[in-house]
Amino acid sequence: MSEADGPRLGAALGVVGGGQLGRMLGLAARPLGHPLHVLAPPSNAGAPARAVAARWVEGAFSDLEAHRTLAADVAALTFEVEDAEPDVLAALEAEGIAVHPSPAALRIVRRRASQRRWLAEKGFPMPALRVVESVDALAAAEAELASAAGPPFVKTDRGGFDGRGQARGKASQDPAMRAALEEQPLVVEAAVPFERELSVLVARDAAGNVAVHPVAENVHIQAVLHHALLPARVDEPTAAEARDLAKRLAEAIGLVGILVVELFVTRDGLLVNEMALRPHNTFHGADRACALGQFEQQLRAVLGWPLGDPELQRPTALVNLFGDLWEGGGGAGLDLATALAVPTVQVHLYEKAATRPRRKMGHLTATGATVDEALARALEAERRLRAAAGIPPFGEAP
Amino acid sequence: MSEADGPRLGAALGVVGGGQLGRMLGLAARPLGHPLHVLAPPSNAGAPARAVAARWVEGAFSDLEAHRTLAADVAALTFEVEDAEPDVLAALEAEGIAVHPSPAALRIVRRRASQRRWLAEKGFPMPALRVVESVDALAAAEAELASAAGPPFVKTDRGGFDGRGQARGKASQDPAMRAALEEQPLVVEAAVPFERELSVLVARDAAGNVAVHPVAENVHIQAVLHHALLPARVDEPTAAEARDLAKRLAEAIGLVGILVVELFVTRDGLLVNEMALRPHNTFHGADRACALGQFEQQLRAVLGWPLGDPELQRPTALVNLFGDLWEGGGGAGLDLATALAVPTVQVHLYEKAATRPRRKMGHLTATGATVDEALARALEAERRLRAAAGIPPFGEAP
Repeated sequence: MSEADGPRLGAALGVVGGGQLGRMLGLAARPLGHPLHVLAPPSNAGAPARAVAARWVEGAFSDLEAHRTLAADVAALTFEVEDAEPDVLAALEAEGIAVHPSPAALRIVRRRASQRRWLAEKGFPMPALRVVESVDALAAAEAELASAAGPPFVKTDRGGFDGRGQARGKASQDPAMRAALEEQPLVVEAAVPFERELSVLVARDAAGNVAVHPVAENVHIQAVLHHALLPARVDEPTAAEARDLAKRLAEAIGLVGILVVELFVTRDGLLVNEMALRPHNTFHGADRACALGQFEQQLRAVLGWPLGDPELQRPTALVNLFGDLWEGGGGAGLDLATALAVPTVQVHLYEKAATRPRRKMGHLTATGATVDEALARALEAERRLRAAAGIPPFGEAP
Repeated sequence: MSEADGPRLGAALGVVGGGQLGRMLGLAARPLGHPLHVLAPPSNAGAPARAVAARWVEGAFSDLEAHRTLAADVAALTFEVEDAEPDVLAALEAEGIAVHPSPAALRIVRRRASQRRWLAEKGFPMPALRVVESVDALAAAEAELASAAGPPFVKTDRGGFDGRGQARGKASQDPAMRAALEEQPLVVEAAVPFERELSVLVARDAAGNVAVHPVAENVHIQAVLHHALLPARVDEPTAAEARDLAKRLAEAIGLVGILVVELFVTRDGLLVNEMALRPHNTFHGADRACALGQFEQQLRAVLGWPLGDPELQRPTALVNLFGDLWEGGGGAGLDLATALAVPTVQVHLYEKAATRPRRKMGHLTATGATVDEALARALEAERRLRAAAGIPPFGEAP
């Protein structure tokens, strides 16, 4: 038999950012014949996406030349970090590169104050909040927004996920927050008594088609996302309202790609907590729970393929694995076997080059006939890992 | 926060063979922190596993020194091709390398004649067959094994999957078969009127624990595996008998790793068609159908981790994609978008460097509430791909 020319492989997908989201995108893109090209700062040499990237471009997020190098040979370009630079991406877009989501959308979402201002302007429901730029205004907002639920949360404009860059109670006297104020605005948000926190993932293509994953539920412990459930334990009207809100957000921002919005379920309805234009920790179990995961959906949206119908297939729970697991047990490392002995449990490690006690190093997922069964399995696997490492249950003092 | 030392990543997994099975193993191993090191012959430079391998050792399967290079830095070593060389692997084993499945088991299974002799010796049910080493013996066996089901199949001892290396009817006058006889024995197997063909995947660890995936069903068209279903459309007593047979096989051969056995369902019970000590095309949809796929199960067995419980989660169908898809349509390549528009459809391409009309280039999977729904979706996606490439339905003349 004669050999024809090789099959035409897909062009590469370019990604700004080399973290675990890029890593998982790369693992999803390879079976579809699309290698991943990554741009990451030099300090990120040991980044999670490194192991799955076909090409690695070192460069700062502000480095246009490095971005041009990345964009030289890709079908489309996306980002996996808020720190990607809208001006640089806009310059590439002007040069004819397909950048999704748009630099304009990133400019709105990437900073807390501009995101909140945009949400308010578009009329999306949010906790009461003030954007402040002085110590006096901070003190006033803290007083104004205190309620029966306690003092408001004070958050920096940039970064500050998972409880970092946040303060609560007398922030105007907190040296770190005062220092932050010299460089950026702060957002002061009223504490909201909420019943549950939800995440909704919506994908949208250039023609305006949308696809929404089943609504997920987040459970935070000590200000970090500890576990997540797919589907969320809410009634269908609430889930439908959440999906509808996410769709309206996607349309309002002109999304091409995926967007995740975190919502509070309160007695007064849904309130927007935060949004991101990229895959989200909550949905790392979506590839098991649904007909497709968030990374394949992202890929489809960014490359202009038909969006997948992410119908629910199996209730799934996710538990994050933090650095304390690696630092425990005398550095003996993770006892994977003890977790994998729990039925349906799978583990995904990010291969981060360095640990910190609260750094997300990986996650585990489990499935079940119900989301409660899935959660029980995932928590049992986490319990075994922590016991093997000689550290107490998550959130308890040693 | 101080940075601790990096997490201890898993050691590499060594694999002999660089095809799509190695590729999929590598994609499954990375989330568990284990990079894949691959040995493949120099002719395989464009092999599917290349894109996912952290290390690539060029060497013939007979090249002990190359194997030592591969084994220098791995937690364990396995193989993904029958052509791996038992003597070479046994030498590594003698040097203290963990090789799973064992070279002794590979020696039994890798050639058709020795596999059939071993199965007969152990009393496993098979179609009537003869191993012949001369033209006269071939002619005699063809006459003897002809039945109402037609002439017997004649197969070469080595290789010859997917209808290659096979003949049927007057093979003793077939120049290719006569030439083959000068180099190797031939196996002459009576044609068996079967209702269905099943595949069973069993994993077994060094302690003798076993885990069996749900029984799958194979459908061949023109002597190649065209599609497969998980679970098979058989009654539970038949499925139970099939699982039991696979477990007995695994025990008899002292398996550490995974084994797949193809079975015929006949009016007289199950008959063994063929067995392999590696993942199998039939189960490429198992990661969607079950709590874990065959590659993660292989990894667990080979690395000495607890075997996963592969409970069925969602009926899944698989359809293979062959080279004719790439050669059609004026070489325009695969129109992925048309397939991905079918609900639940996912595509996995192997990135092979060269096509042939009947070469397996990838597969697609679909899920459904029933296996029939899943199959209808997968076949619809295949139909669209072929129509887009301007070629007729699989198995029909152009």
